[in-house]
Amino acid sequence: MISILILGSGSATPKVNRNPAGVLVNSNNSYFLVDCGEGTQLQLRRYKQSLQRIHQIFISHLHADHFLGLFGLLSTQSLLGREKALDVFAPKGLQEIIEVQMKITKTYWGFPLNFHDIDCKKEAVLWQDEEMEVHSIPLNHKIDCVGFSFRQKTKPRNILQSKIEFYKIPVFARRAIKNGADFTDENGRVIPNKELTTAAPRVFSFTYISDTRVLKEVPVAVLGTDLLYHEATFLSDMIERAKATHHCTAQQAAQFAALAEVKKLVLGHFSARYDELDEFIAEAKPYFANVDVAQDGQWFSTE
Amino acid sequence: MISILILGSGSATPKVNRNPAGVLVNSNNSYFLVDCGEGTQLQLRRYKQSLQRIHQIFISHLHADHFLGLFGLLSTQSLLGREKALDVFAPKGLQEIIEVQMKITKTYWGFPLNFHDIDCKKEAVLWQDEEMEVHSIPLNHKIDCVGFSFRQKTKPRNILQSKIEFYKIPVFARRAIKNGADFTDENGRVIPNKELTTAAPRVFSFTYISDTRVLKEVPVAVLGTDLLYHEATFLSDMIERAKATHHCTAQQAAQFAALAEVKKLVLGHFSARYDELDEFIAEAKPYFANVDVAQDGQWFSTE
Repeated sequence: MISILILGSGSATPKVNRNPAGVLVNSNNSYFLVDCGEGTQLQLRRYKQSLQRIHQIFISHLHADHFLGLFGLLSTQSLLGREKALDVFAPKGLQEIIEVQMKITKTYWGFPLNFHDIDCKKEAVLWQDEEMEVHSIPLNHKIDCVGFSFRQKTKPRNILQSKIEFYKIPVFARRAIKNGADFTDENGRVIPNKELTTAAPRVFSFTYISDTRVLKEVPVAVLGTDLLYHEATFLSDMIERAKATHHCTAQQAAQFAALAEVKKLVLGHFSARYDELDEFIAEAKPYFANVDVAQDGQWFSTE
Repeated sequence: MISILILGSGSATPKVNRNPAGVLVNSNNSYFLVDCGEGTQLQLRRYKQSLQRIHQIFISHLHADHFLGLFGLLSTQSLLGREKALDVFAPKGLQEIIEVQMKITKTYWGFPLNFHDIDCKKEAVLWQDEEMEVHSIPLNHKIDCVGFSFRQKTKPRNILQSKIEFYKIPVFARRAIKNGADFTDENGRVIPNKELTTAAPRVFSFTYISDTRVLKEVPVAVLGTDLLYHEATFLSDMIERAKATHHCTAQQAAQFAALAEVKKLVLGHFSARYDELDEFIAEAKPYFANVDVAQDGQWFSTE
């Protein structure tokens, strides 16, 4: 399972109940932060999430509502005694912004901070470990901007301990069996894989599509994603404004979700002009039924 | 009267109910912002204060919890259509921080923004208009840091319209009378000022003492201030920590208030380690009786 916590469902002009952009991603107790608008550190505290469990931060683009909270978050992490390294993935320029503030304010973090410039023109694996890989998804915004696709890695099948003992399966043969091979014992008898193993745990994916005009084609890393967070800054009556500002309407986000064959869609990044969000659901549902709207503090999970 | 709205009563590590530093000052419907920690723009909205009525912003020092909210505030002011010029008074360096972010994010404000570097070593009038002057107060913090004293200007006495007509007081003579002079009519008769005028409206002052070790001497511009906001990051049992971090205890702030002969004291900038603030009152009261503690969203006024 992958779960996401909405830290900010607002857009450039924040509202009291809608912080600027931020999503906390939880995959098997690994925590990732995606975007970090002003106030993100306080939102994490408000929703009782540890700041120190976050080791990778992904920033979609350098508009203020997506990164202004980073310096404060880093400051607090340092003040609270963080020593573990932190990686920040962002379009080129954020490192300079942070380092100028460090220089002028004479701030030094108590932990190693590594910046990684994202090439916003191409889809790439930005980061991975044994369990997860994170892809960048080029978007179409006014400035360089990417989305992120979090994909849990397929795991090997589990060999049953009882079968290892019964068939005396040697260590060197086990990796192939975990990957689906049958086993041939010393007498030449072939034991089918399905008798030896149980299925690998299911893997899930989450995609975050930040500020963008609607994508006409579905990037490979997005196809079939279990949970899609997609910006829907406007309703369709504002489609001209959406085009002009390189944003999407609820209908466009839903149409993209259908095209991408995702399992579940969460809309967010709402313009401050909207108080109620029922219209976003109503507009999206005819195009993609399994849709919800993000609200600050709400969790969503893959199903 | 001068009123202040507490936007943030916390210190470097914010809490959910204590934003980083920020105070809105209201003097006869002129609004000034003092410090602008992360989330200040949202605090202004939360407490239903217009962002656009603020034309002067005073930043005490370049620690993150005192200025990180500025870029977001300026962005929103611009997005909401601000055209009126804005003046920012801050120690040298803030302009560079803001301009680097503007350059990298390709942000342009729709209004003129003027930075004024504060010389933190001397007391000076930073800004004034017909009704108010704002003084810088050098403080003793780890980096260059100033407080601010807002002093309403003494106004002339009011000449009674009935007396102008009765004594046929010519226009050229009125300014002197407003400033307290008697009037000699064309027959050489002296009319005493108090028969011609009513008293000028009372004027008030507010002083903001940001992060500092306790001041040993009272700056001229602080003496007798009607309302004093003074940092009290710690209680006295943490006095060594207060010294090491160049902060004050509640007792020190109260002793300073007594020395400065202020009318009313409000303590703020509390360390995140404290949940309840009753102890701050209890510790301060023996040294200065008219004391209160700042809480986000609370208004205080000169009396």
